[in-house]
Amino acid sequence: MTLLRSHLGSTLRTARMNQGRTLRDVAKSARVSLGYLSEVERGQKEASSELLNSICNALDLSLSMVLSDVLLQVKSQETPVLTVVDDAA
Amino acid sequence: MTLLRSHLGSTLRTARMNQGRTLRDVAKSARVSLGYLSEVERGQKEASSELLNSICNALDLSLSMVLSDVLLQVKSQETPVLTVVDDAA
Repeated sequence: MTLLRSHLGSTLRTARMNQGRTLRDVAKSARVSLGYLSEVERGQKEASSELLNSICNALDLSLSMVLSDVLLQVKSQETPVLTVVDDAA
Repeated sequence: MTLLRSHLGSTLRTARMNQGRTLRDVAKSARVSLGYLSEVERGQKEASSELLNSICNALDLSLSMVLSDVLLQVKSQETPVLTVVDDAA
């Protein structure tokens, strides 16, 4: 099942790592605990909308940039997988 | 401040009303309480990812369709507003 929090977490983690930043650095900047950010990134906790904005700000990303990436991920999971049927079998 | 839950709620409420359905009907179909759905639609409660999926299913919408609409709303709020300066004043 596609879970919004998993995709959000994945997007936030990828953005942080692409910036070469640590959990500690981003958590401090977003004023959230390191454990909270870690759980959000791993899709284990639903970020509140307010803290999601704080994390986006800490990463210098707009909410729409994050949602655009999440949307791409969700769409790719929703796309039906084409199965090659081997008639020769 | 742009809050994800406000836009999600607005999108879900608009979709339900466009389908001419009641809170009671959609809540029953999604197996959530009427009060919960009502709070989510008004942006007063964060929907868990699992219940968001249930509500999307109840509305016969994919998560990506809902997120696409949310993204448009968020983008329109983020776009800087151009102010007309009246030089004649």
